[in-house]
Amino acid sequence: MAGGVDHPIRPNPDAAPAGPIGKRRWAIAEGFIPPGSTGEGPEFESHETVCILNANDAPAAVRITLFFEDRDPVGPYGVEVPARRTVHVRFNSFENPEIPKGLGFASIIESDLPIVCQHTRLDSRQAELALLSTVAFSEG
Amino acid sequence: MAGGVDHPIRPNPDAAPAGPIGKRRWAIAEGFIPPGSTGEGPEFESHETVCILNANDAPAAVRITLFFEDRDPVGPYGVEVPARRTVHVRFNSFENPEIPKGLGFASIIESDLPIVCQHTRLDSRQAELALLSTVAFSEG
Amino acid sequence: MAGGVDHPIRPNPDAAPAGPIGKRRWAIAEGFIPPGSTGEGPEFESHETVCILNANDAPAAVRITLFFEDRDPVGPYGVEVPARRTVHVRFNSFENPEIPKGLGFASIIESDLPIVCQHTRLDSRQAELALLSTVAFSEG
Amino acid sequence: MAGGVDHPIRPNPDAAPAGPIGKRRWAIAEGFIPPGSTGEGPEFESHETVCILNANDAPAAVRITLFFEDRDPVGPYGVEVPARRTVHVRFNSFENPEIPKGLGFASIIESDLPIVCQHTRLDSRQAELALLSTVAFSEG
Repeated sequence: MAGGVDHPIRPNPDAAPAGPIGKRRWAIAEGFIPPGSTGEGPEFESHETVCILNANDAPAAVRITLFFEDRDPVGPYGVEVPARRTVHVRFNSFENPEIPKGLGFASIIESDLPIVCQHTRLDSRQAELALLSTVAFSEG
Repeated sequence: MAGGVDHPIRPNPDAAPAGPIGKRRWAIAEGFIPPGSTGEGPEFESHETVCILNANDAPAAVRITLFFEDRDPVGPYGVEVPARRTVHVRFNSFENPEIPKGLGFASIIESDLPIVCQHTRLDSRQAELALLSTVAFSEG
Repeated sequence: MAGGVDHPIRPNPDAAPAGPIGKRRWAIAEGFIPPGSTGEGPEFESHETVCILNANDAPAAVRITLFFEDRDPVGPYGVEVPARRTVHVRFNSFENPEIPKGLGFASIIESDLPIVCQHTRLDSRQAELALLSTVAFSEG
Repeated sequence: MAGGVDHPIRPNPDAAPAGPIGKRRWAIAEGFIPPGSTGEGPEFESHETVCILNANDAPAAVRITLFFEDRDPVGPYGVEVPARRTVHVRFNSFENPEIPKGLGFASIIESDLPIVCQHTRLDSRQAELALLSTVAFSEG
């Protein structure tokens, strides 16, 4: 992490584009929106995110179902990820219903096309932020 | 992680619910309950957690066995995860015996139904918390 | 993480070297170069890294394609990882075009030989750094 | 991560012990021993760790080979993990040769029996520690 390559890394315009990669079903067993933030702007707002990569040539219809400790599941919430794009979905922005802050939850992410999902949290409840991230669990 | 979608994400009440996902055997090779905390309330207490998602329509009987560096394994401890619920299990709350703080341990999580397990630690020994998380290792 | 073995760990010069390991296609769905740093030197500069291990006896030709939320993919950028070496590639050092700081992106890493890829970020926007890491998603 | 179960979690002495789990070959593509620490005692010393779980009824002979950016691999270093034990191996404690601090490295972990490996770093170069962790990449 200290070193790295010592020459500039440049693209090759003649190379073929990367093709699709991923799975259709994903799960994140950990979920928690920290109830509070320090710092300015949305970058430093405490947030819980699933980052989705759709490397296909067509848009992916993604459905996210949420599970809780003390109530029935909600969803699926719908997210469309355009062709050959990534979307960083903040659980903070879910509506009707919103996701309660400060409570544990889990999620299942389903897509009609193969995608890749990674879970990231930024916790800025205290003055110095903390981060976590993991590739989600996948099947199919 | 900065961006995200710019429209509200709403559930579709007509969509089918997400089905079961996961494996029956999981392992977490890293374990450590930090011996001390700063901050107020259980949220900021240093803790070591396995988050379990049970997306099945029936409760999952989960057994957790702990391994140590200098003594025989203990357990299995029993946890029931209700149907279509998540449980965030704190190793801090295990009893008879309690898990010693400040010592390394590892765990195997076994279930009669497929589940998904994720390992998370919040370390608040110092004034500014630190986080780690990873999907656990799975088989079967 | 507290304990560890209490004897020195020494190499065995008679043992056979470790052979190749890994996959040819990898994806990192999360990407973000924090737009700012505190602390001195490149070690404390905020950075986004893919660490690549090439355990083969021949160099690996690696191609990295980047995906964004609001624009077309760029790349593939070319990186050669020498035989039996690791390279810690900082996305910060990509050129023509550079990767915009403060925007979400994702990446696909493709290699002609099996490799192992791990994603790590050091965020030093605030006085006390934060870290995240995960093995990337792999196929093939 | 906030909630958790509200009853004590107790072991069932009649249950069968957990059996072996894991793979024989593992890789960690990211490695870095932070060159400096704050805080008191080995717990707060910056360290790079591979946590190994051996759930077998026999000891596991583990060999760790290290790869660098600018020099030939070293090792394999030998570690024995006793039957039904975990060992948290600090790369800081390797000898002849020691692992240079502040340089990137990667590792391959090989075992004669199935094991589970997880990579964890505690970075205390600054006053408030940072953590990262991920299950390692596995084969076989």
